[in-house]
Amino acid sequence: MARINDNYLKLKAGYLFPEIGRRVAKFASENPSANIIRLGIGDVTEPLIPAVVQAFHQAVDEMAKRDTFKGYGPEQGYEFLRTAIAQNDYQARGAEVSADEIFVSDGSKCDTGNILDIFGDDNVIAVTDPVYPVYVDTNVMAGHTGPADDAGRYGGLVYIPMTAANGFTPALPDRKVDLIYLCFPNNPTGTVISKEALTKWVEYAKANDAIILYDAAYESYITDPTVPHSIFEIPGAKEVALEFRSFSKTAGFTGTRCAFTVVPKTLKGKTSSGQSVDIHSLWNRRQSTKFNGVSYPVQKAAAAIYSAEGKQQIRDMIAFYLTNARLIREGLQRANIEVHGGVNAPYVWLKAPRNLSSWDFFDLLLSKAHLVGTPGSGFGAAGEGYFRLSAFNSREKVEEAVARFQKVVG
Amino acid sequence: MARINDNYLKLKAGYLFPEIGRRVAKFASENPSANIIRLGIGDVTEPLIPAVVQAFHQAVDEMAKRDTFKGYGPEQGYEFLRTAIAQNDYQARGAEVSADEIFVSDGSKCDTGNILDIFGDDNVIAVTDPVYPVYVDTNVMAGHTGPADDAGRYGGLVYIPMTAANGFTPALPDRKVDLIYLCFPNNPTGTVISKEALTKWVEYAKANDAIILYDAAYESYITDPTVPHSIFEIPGAKEVALEFRSFSKTAGFTGTRCAFTVVPKTLKGKTSSGQSVDIHSLWNRRQSTKFNGVSYPVQKAAAAIYSAEGKQQIRDMIAFYLTNARLIREGLQRANIEVHGGVNAPYVWLKAPRNLSSWDFFDLLLSKAHLVGTPGSGFGAAGEGYFRLSAFNSREKVEEAVARFQKVVG
Repeated sequence: MARINDNYLKLKAGYLFPEIGRRVAKFASENPSANIIRLGIGDVTEPLIPAVVQAFHQAVDEMAKRDTFKGYGPEQGYEFLRTAIAQNDYQARGAEVSADEIFVSDGSKCDTGNILDIFGDDNVIAVTDPVYPVYVDTNVMAGHTGPADDAGRYGGLVYIPMTAANGFTPALPDRKVDLIYLCFPNNPTGTVISKEALTKWVEYAKANDAIILYDAAYESYITDPTVPHSIFEIPGAKEVALEFRSFSKTAGFTGTRCAFTVVPKTLKGKTSSGQSVDIHSLWNRRQSTKFNGVSYPVQKAAAAIYSAEGKQQIRDMIAFYLTNARLIREGLQRANIEVHGGVNAPYVWLKAPRNLSSWDFFDLLLSKAHLVGTPGSGFGAAGEGYFRLSAFNSREKVEEAVARFQKVVG
Repeated sequence: MARINDNYLKLKAGYLFPEIGRRVAKFASENPSANIIRLGIGDVTEPLIPAVVQAFHQAVDEMAKRDTFKGYGPEQGYEFLRTAIAQNDYQARGAEVSADEIFVSDGSKCDTGNILDIFGDDNVIAVTDPVYPVYVDTNVMAGHTGPADDAGRYGGLVYIPMTAANGFTPALPDRKVDLIYLCFPNNPTGTVISKEALTKWVEYAKANDAIILYDAAYESYITDPTVPHSIFEIPGAKEVALEFRSFSKTAGFTGTRCAFTVVPKTLKGKTSSGQSVDIHSLWNRRQSTKFNGVSYPVQKAAAAIYSAEGKQQIRDMIAFYLTNARLIREGLQRANIEVHGGVNAPYVWLKAPRNLSSWDFFDLLLSKAHLVGTPGSGFGAAGEGYFRLSAFNSREKVEEAVARFQKVVG
């Protein structure tokens, strides 16, 4: 009899965004004339930049001619893209990452989920609370947890609060953990980590033979020059961390699909008998066996963001979204809402007024202002009472959203 | 201490194709003037068809304008593509598959590997021998096997011989198995299964509560009208099977990346306590959590193969490769080589002459004829002494390869 993976039954109903989608679809069908503004799911709205579009077309034309046609590419990504990433995103910042430590993929969601394939089932896993739900759900699916309690916390995971009370800087775990998920600039809170605080995490990992799974998908939104863009800016991090990056938010690739993961050759794990093994070679084996590389035209399109004009065009696009974030932040502050983030990230994290629960506030905003945001409780128990707004929309809609918001809560 | 997944250490050195790549690279660097012809890895050589190129460009242009820009798409694939697949690949053949049973992905290699996520670890797994190595290696990685023996067979897997002795029609297992990988038209042997034989497998699965993981990546190469293109042409298969399909070989998408998996809503598995669970909802949850959909322009490009002109253009391309297959097959037969496949598939499976081992024959062909093929033993113990040639190349190179082959073994 074919047995299923029972761990799936531990998952709480619906991944956060499908649940939001269901509620919005229901409201929209019952209120067909409502002009709904979505600041919920972190999805970009601006078109691909001209440099990317041009490279994309050129690569499609290459695929149309026998002499330049490309079949299977390297599972790890094309050299031209890996080199551009290593030079521009790392070496230019003094982080010594080489091209062959970069694995190009079709998304950070995939990589952050798939990374568990190469780790054992007996690691103690730490996540922040609130947290990007994929880290948690993939551990549930892999059988690394018990069932969830009423607040949504799964047994067996170590939750590290990241709240207004500690300035959104997670404290080091009070017990020994083996795998640590950190995301900065943070999704959902939009806050960042200082070099000093991140250095403490690297030192913790070194002292405890732990590995940090560092998600820097939003690094291009950092405006404060003292904030690290990569964990590899911290000395010694190449022995204790790998890093996820994406073109999704950097270059508007959520529908185009390209990301990458940096796995240093110096990163080691242990077998159950204590033998030391390169994580790089395990991930290479995982990707070679279960993945077939990213579409060639997409990789050419991604590489175009590193040209001089590409760099300027994505800077402009990010500046546009960051202005949106500022408008949202300032608008909420004028309405006397407690607000965090939105300076070095495209997310604003706000405290729901009148001590409303996250979902009650979601329903209120949707029904009264026709605004869609993301309930903080969907990111973890410590997110209860909070709410995430994203800066990804047109200026006009952002301004309209802020005006509506002030009417409802002001 | 961060523990790795020890099961990776059970994998035999290198996935087959990287090993071939290493040997060819070594030979090429030592013999820079050698004109190497590659009939090894099953990678297409002809450019994307005009209908696909046109749709690809149009979709890139949509991504360049704010009004038509697409961010995150449905994790399951766009409706336009799922509907085109359901209608053309299934309903037109009398197989009642609906659009919402289709999950679009970036590759069948990914899907055949990832599918194990949703199944339990205590299933008895059956594979044919020879077999596409990804089925085996992903089970090794998932901890479903013991170590490999000297012939390369992993403990715990049930190997079902598929050889000249049984006409490449695998016999039903002599014990109860739970998950069965079948691939027809077969990689590597290029042989097919009759409706009668496939019906027996469906009946076996039904009688044993087993699930068949049916890989039909090469179905578009079927020329014999009596051969089933899909397992869903067999009555009752929707209760016991899911099916992998790809645009890679159908439309030359190996470098463009698009595939799909059909998971019928009627397919069930059991929990360890015997509760019945929909496989469709598990796969949907897996894909929603660990995958973010296929690039929008790629999906538009894929959908173009279902237009009237797209259909004709891919028919012509497949006919071209099948003529290559015939030339290889006939050339080998003239050299008195035992040969199989190559009629309903782009692969020809041949017996190495003079009882050479597969790798010895590989080295002979490479060194004496500068030809690259794939050693049969790389596909399993029962492939030892056999060799796979692929029809994916230009007519000129195929003719040259046949001439060289005859010189070496004729």
